[in-house]
Amino acid sequence: MKPEIKQLRDKLKGLGLNGMIVSNPISVKYLTDLDAEGILLIAPKENVFITDSRYIESVNNSLTIDSEIFAYDKKNISKYDYEAFFENLGDIGFEENYVTYANYKKYLEMFHINLVETEGLVESQRIVKENYEIEKIKKACEITDQAFEYIIKHIKKGMTEKQIAYELENYMLSNGADGIAFETIVASGENSSMPHAVPTNRKIQENDIILFDFGAKYQGYHADCSRTVFVGTIPEEQKKVYEFVLEEQEKIIENFKEGTNIKTIIRNRETDYNLENFEVMHSFGHGVGLEIHEVPFLNSKVDNILKKNSVVTVEPGVYFPGKFGIRIEDTCLIDKNECIKLTKTAKTITTIKLI
Amino acid sequence: MKPEIKQLRDKLKGLGLNGMIVSNPISVKYLTDLDAEGILLIAPKENVFITDSRYIESVNNSLTIDSEIFAYDKKNISKYDYEAFFENLGDIGFEENYVTYANYKKYLEMFHINLVETEGLVESQRIVKENYEIEKIKKACEITDQAFEYIIKHIKKGMTEKQIAYELENYMLSNGADGIAFETIVASGENSSMPHAVPTNRKIQENDIILFDFGAKYQGYHADCSRTVFVGTIPEEQKKVYEFVLEEQEKIIENFKEGTNIKTIIRNRETDYNLENFEVMHSFGHGVGLEIHEVPFLNSKVDNILKKNSVVTVEPGVYFPGKFGIRIEDTCLIDKNECIKLTKTAKTITTIKLI
Repeated sequence: MKPEIKQLRDKLKGLGLNGMIVSNPISVKYLTDLDAEGILLIAPKENVFITDSRYIESVNNSLTIDSEIFAYDKKNISKYDYEAFFENLGDIGFEENYVTYANYKKYLEMFHINLVETEGLVESQRIVKENYEIEKIKKACEITDQAFEYIIKHIKKGMTEKQIAYELENYMLSNGADGIAFETIVASGENSSMPHAVPTNRKIQENDIILFDFGAKYQGYHADCSRTVFVGTIPEEQKKVYEFVLEEQEKIIENFKEGTNIKTIIRNRETDYNLENFEVMHSFGHGVGLEIHEVPFLNSKVDNILKKNSVVTVEPGVYFPGKFGIRIEDTCLIDKNECIKLTKTAKTITTIKLI
Repeated sequence: MKPEIKQLRDKLKGLGLNGMIVSNPISVKYLTDLDAEGILLIAPKENVFITDSRYIESVNNSLTIDSEIFAYDKKNISKYDYEAFFENLGDIGFEENYVTYANYKKYLEMFHINLVETEGLVESQRIVKENYEIEKIKKACEITDQAFEYIIKHIKKGMTEKQIAYELENYMLSNGADGIAFETIVASGENSSMPHAVPTNRKIQENDIILFDFGAKYQGYHADCSRTVFVGTIPEEQKKVYEFVLEEQEKIIENFKEGTNIKTIIRNRETDYNLENFEVMHSFGHGVGLEIHEVPFLNSKVDNILKKNSVVTVEPGVYFPGKFGIRIEDTCLIDKNECIKLTKTAKTITTIKLI
């Protein structure tokens, strides 16, 4: 049995639950390593994966005796089988933030159980990464770094944001990534002031600022990196803001390690923003792993203690609507005594020459 | 008020509902034209869009007095405002197939109402497309056709499936598409036998079969097209299967028009499959519009009458696991007396030459 399932079974026992229906596909993938649609039942006597005829063959090929997971094609499961899985054992956990109301009702009827909300149980287990997960995130970050190094040397005069985003993604896909972590942002000139800009047909020109936010996906795991660079000369105002953002980012990274309360660090950064009259328009960061955005989120609202081997992004930014914006972001690994940057592209002020 | 909202209000009245909470983002976009996260309240006296600070400015810029939609940033809405929206008026519809159990409970508490399941009310309204929607789908199909014409002339010896998929997508994005309708399938040789293949590093070689399934996205609307082509000579067995699939596809298209019962037509096709001992491994088609897969689905299980101005794909296929597969698919518009193909690439047996 995968240690991830064992750990979940222990947690369920601690909560007084007799089992759980796992339906969030990311959680299913995390617990089973299976790439197939279906739900995972953590039942009293066995682990059951219910899928359909599209996947049953490949699922059975992937599972070994050590998996301790029984796979069923749902078309072969009877009403009585469904009722037998949990043996009428009462309280069974489910993912209330993922299961639709329609499926909630269906589960109640099918399994003859009492459904209990589990409040992100698997998601919070996923915060602490196993070594094999960290290796995959590192690889995704490496590809991301290489892609950035490539792209800033290949921006031609007159290229559009869309074309640059496309080249960047192409580089990642051709160099080991098996996907793009999220929709790439390439925002130039005044477009950089929108934290969630999408690439447009705006052409890069002299004295532009360009904000990149991008990442590779590798074996299901994500990298997330932002850099802001300048074309030609840098206006003094932008230089000052860049230095502020970089300093703020490094302050967070320096303070992060196992045991740090995220809230305290982020509150201090918000104070710095207030002193400069900057508005906080974008989150300071988030967990990253099998999902591009996962817990923990970096905010000053709730106490949130960093755990060893969790992976988070650190991404402060300052935005002046209609003018320009600057964001700097790294994907970082939380260790016992430090916070280790997994994206390593230099962050000294960079000016590029159009080719 | 958009006619789509008026129509929904009439339907709600007919169902004895005093309003509805629309939370499926596709339905929200359909009813409001807004590109923003949030929920739409169809309330007794007004239409309310609740969003957050990331979107409120652009939402307010998009809305006009004719929209008759009031937009709120949720951080400015009090507990009492929430309770006032529906005036304690009792039965309010919600989307049970979209709303999570956690949000269902939150809505109950926030709005002080009784929530009633609406069973795909907006989705079924979306089946019949407005003219402006049909124009957008046509444009997406045009780009899709052009991309296919381009790609079959640009396949080099030794190119991988991934590279071909990438070129195809690049062509669409550089020629008017603002997105890819779904993950492109380029499946060659034995890979074509998997209905849901993802492009691999397999290199195209002489005497290959290549199955393409792809489409452009244009202003939110999708195109969906499959073609199967041959490299060099065609084995007799594959030729026969191709002719069978094409004939089956044309039989469906010839029979589809306003008022046709999908079930009857598909049941007849399944009979043809049985006669040839072919297994039905992939759906015969689906509605397409703001979503790549939407109602109606083409199956023989339930009565389902085609409506004028609905858009569906017709995509029979035959698959021999480990050997080869053939699928032919068009996006089609249902009219009063006929079914009009919106993807128009020729379907005569095509052999390509590697360059």
